[in-house]
Amino acid sequence: MKFLEKMKFDEKGLIPAIIQDADTNEVLMLAYMNEDSFLETMETGLTHFWSRSRKKLWKKGESSGHTQKVHEILFDCDIDTLLIKVHQTGAACHKGYRSCFYRKIVDKKGKVRTKGKKVFDPEKVYKKK
Amino acid sequence: MKFLEKMKFDEKGLIPAIIQDADTNEVLMLAYMNEDSFLETMETGLTHFWSRSRKKLWKKGESSGHTQKVHEILFDCDIDTLLIKVHQTGAACHKGYRSCFYRKIVDKKGKVRTKGKKVFDPEKVYKKK
Repeated sequence: MKFLEKMKFDEKGLIPAIIQDADTNEVLMLAYMNEDSFLETMETGLTHFWSRSRKKLWKKGESSGHTQKVHEILFDCDIDTLLIKVHQTGAACHKGYRSCFYRKIVDKKGKVRTKGKKVFDPEKVYKKK
Repeated sequence: MKFLEKMKFDEKGLIPAIIQDADTNEVLMLAYMNEDSFLETMETGLTHFWSRSRKKLWKKGESSGHTQKVHEILFDCDIDTLLIKVHQTGAACHKGYRSCFYRKIVDKKGKVRTKGKKVFDPEKVYKKK
């Protein structure tokens, strides 16, 4: 695939992908793709990432069922970042919020506040099998 | 600043910051901050980054005048990514587009198409002094 040759993966072979809700334009998460997960995303139309902590290919929603159907894939001027607009089933964040960005900094001292609302209970969704 | 201690900078001392238009919710760019540029952003209310290519602190808009006034700073569940909502003067992309994400992939073969419209001429804005 020609486009793949133009993409600038970092020294670990990864490229960051910003995931944005195609309907609301809410930014849901940032995750990383290697070549395989990018191609798997292109092929299946569902987002796949490289888990840096688990060191494995990871289909978003494989445990929770909260998959992301690809609507559009954009890329930046340097071709070193992807912006993927998706239709999100359930919620993006494993903590139970629709977006991973559910907290904000509220003053110069770095005080924080939770902004988002929980939409599922992680203990129920990720229950031990 | 307490919050700084909780932030997960990578092995290069950087954290990615997604920049989103506070009015339109358009994603404008992704850039990287080190501790200094994060603190400078907090202090001045204007985005500052670490330029990985030029290896220096960089005030967004220092050459072009296209500064970004901070509206809100959110952070993700792992505290390893920032989402900064801004009021953008002019355009975010040095190529002349409002957003750096002005191109998209249109088919499985990786064919691309320009989506955004140019809002300024880079040759005029970044003219040699």
